[in-house]
Amino acid sequence: MRKIIPIVLLISFFLGCTTEYKPKVFNDKTLKKQNDFAIVIHGGAGTILKKNMTKEKEEAYKEKLAAAIKIGHTILKNGGTSQEAVLKTIQVMEESPLFNAGKGAVYTNAGTNELDASFMDGKTLNAGAVAGVKNVKSPIELAIKVMTDSEHVMLSGAGASLFAKEQGLEIVAPSYFYTEHSFKALQKVKKIQKNKLKLEDEQAAFYDANIKDSKFGTVGCVALDKSGNISAGTSTGGMTNKRWGRIGDAPIIGSGTYANNLTCGVSSTGWGEYFIRSQVAYDISAQMEYQQKSLKEATKDVIQNKLTKLGGLGGVVALDKNGNMSFEFNTEGMYRASMDDKGTLSVKIYKE
Amino acid sequence: MRKIIPIVLLISFFLGCTTEYKPKVFNDKTLKKQNDFAIVIHGGAGTILKKNMTKEKEEAYKEKLAAAIKIGHTILKNGGTSQEAVLKTIQVMEESPLFNAGKGAVYTNAGTNELDASFMDGKTLNAGAVAGVKNVKSPIELAIKVMTDSEHVMLSGAGASLFAKEQGLEIVAPSYFYTEHSFKALQKVKKIQKNKLKLEDEQAAFYDANIKDSKFGTVGCVALDKSGNISAGTSTGGMTNKRWGRIGDAPIIGSGTYANNLTCGVSSTGWGEYFIRSQVAYDISAQMEYQQKSLKEATKDVIQNKLTKLGGLGGVVALDKNGNMSFEFNTEGMYRASMDDKGTLSVKIYKE
Repeated sequence: MRKIIPIVLLISFFLGCTTEYKPKVFNDKTLKKQNDFAIVIHGGAGTILKKNMTKEKEEAYKEKLAAAIKIGHTILKNGGTSQEAVLKTIQVMEESPLFNAGKGAVYTNAGTNELDASFMDGKTLNAGAVAGVKNVKSPIELAIKVMTDSEHVMLSGAGASLFAKEQGLEIVAPSYFYTEHSFKALQKVKKIQKNKLKLEDEQAAFYDANIKDSKFGTVGCVALDKSGNISAGTSTGGMTNKRWGRIGDAPIIGSGTYANNLTCGVSSTGWGEYFIRSQVAYDISAQMEYQQKSLKEATKDVIQNKLTKLGGLGGVVALDKNGNMSFEFNTEGMYRASMDDKGTLSVKIYKE
Repeated sequence: MRKIIPIVLLISFFLGCTTEYKPKVFNDKTLKKQNDFAIVIHGGAGTILKKNMTKEKEEAYKEKLAAAIKIGHTILKNGGTSQEAVLKTIQVMEESPLFNAGKGAVYTNAGTNELDASFMDGKTLNAGAVAGVKNVKSPIELAIKVMTDSEHVMLSGAGASLFAKEQGLEIVAPSYFYTEHSFKALQKVKKIQKNKLKLEDEQAAFYDANIKDSKFGTVGCVALDKSGNISAGTSTGGMTNKRWGRIGDAPIIGSGTYANNLTCGVSSTGWGEYFIRSQVAYDISAQMEYQQKSLKEATKDVIQNKLTKLGGLGGVVALDKNGNMSFEFNTEGMYRASMDDKGTLSVKIYKE
């Protein structure tokens, strides 16, 4: 009997140990490789309601989102890099007047277009970003060039344009970015303000509810390639009527864009100031790394809990290292699409 | 004996349970309120070696650091806000030619001074930042104005200067920022490059080891006031010979500056590109929030482990909500000072 006691002691000691805390890991489903490669995109989030949409407009958005994501998907399928997939996919959206990025960018208070973009490589944690660029056709291409061909992460204004020129990137006349839609949006906002505000209040012009409620047509893409590398990119024209060289979250690494092969890639769209204050993109990665949350849990907490509590509006698309996807937003809608390694395409606009 | 076994079983089960994981919480010492109010500052980190210092230069730095921190400490002692303490303390360093911020800022490749600054309020998570400002005397004051008097977080270039003017901030001639020291530094770097590089390599000029090793004289301050509010601010001229409108980490919320009353306040100084990629300032807060690390543990991991692994050089000063202080850097030295609620002043330059 004396021999039994130490044995029982030992066994039950280990039984006790089994109640030991184990850091919560991704649940079985998300732990497994879901996709060898995958791609997700967004074309902005905001008050996008079915009742305000025509069938034609809806189709135009869906077709362009599908065309853009298919470009990136083909690159990934053929063994290309996630960097190339993100670049080429975003360029399709930059070239479309439907989105607030590249051609179609919104107008500043001064009647100019000032473009922002950023890119991050999840393997090296290297990154590139540009802010306030006025004459570079593809801001996302420039952001990647900043990463690959300068020792900097972020360039701005005329200096960034000079760098683009030195690197042989396509320079365009400011009129290239013109769309009737964006130009009219500026006139409309200015008119509302003129009627509402005294001249001395002009600087308050920005804070119009009309702008807060409008959609934010930033575009973004996150891709996971067959080598397990995650890349994320974001490109935008910012906000209609922006002033004073305002920089939003799109070119801010950790706010608008983040990628880390150990966790996930994220691209944001929304009311940029709140995305900066909430550190949206990096916070999703941090919750996965430090709290062992799944991508779904992390994106949900950051957008529906933390960002919402602060008063911020918008959303993210994200991909984790196992090819799990997340589309989280607290607005009425978000233009978004995804393709998995089986080629399944999903294109959505409204809440589900 | 049969009765003994279940008892032994029960006891050893609970013994086993004592090895159960408990989320590590701040240790007793750091959990307790250490200081009702406190303030920490830095004046840059880099290859600061005693053998390269004259006694006079060392004294000049120590005196200015002490003068700056005493201003903020007096404000806190008299019940003022941490925002006011950070502003007034940083302004003393901005006005001193000893530091690379405000007067004394380093020169860009174009021979201009382009100033960056940021500020964050730990109570509201509101923030303000400016990048590439050329004629505003106090960039930290402007960063705070962006926070309090615009709906934006970040303004840049000429637009930011226009905002400063509209807000009645002091505008100065570009010559105000001139110091012989900074101007000579640019000439020296350009000369080294000219001798070493072919003309077509001029754009590689920035990557000179000479610059990597030079000290980064960014200034920063974190304060905790009697109401428990943490504020953090950072101000800099960036890097000698910077080009293309380069933006470093100093104006990036989450990289150069972060504050949250629930965790800590942080101000960074160093090789900005790495601080952006590492999300230095917010990562310290995230580790405290999500991993229950102490301020000391979090700053150590972020600077000595994560940043160092990536190849980044520099450091941070930080304060947590209980008035614990941290000065973590991976360079030879960091100009730094602290004052606690008993008025104890500490001013240091080198590693200890």
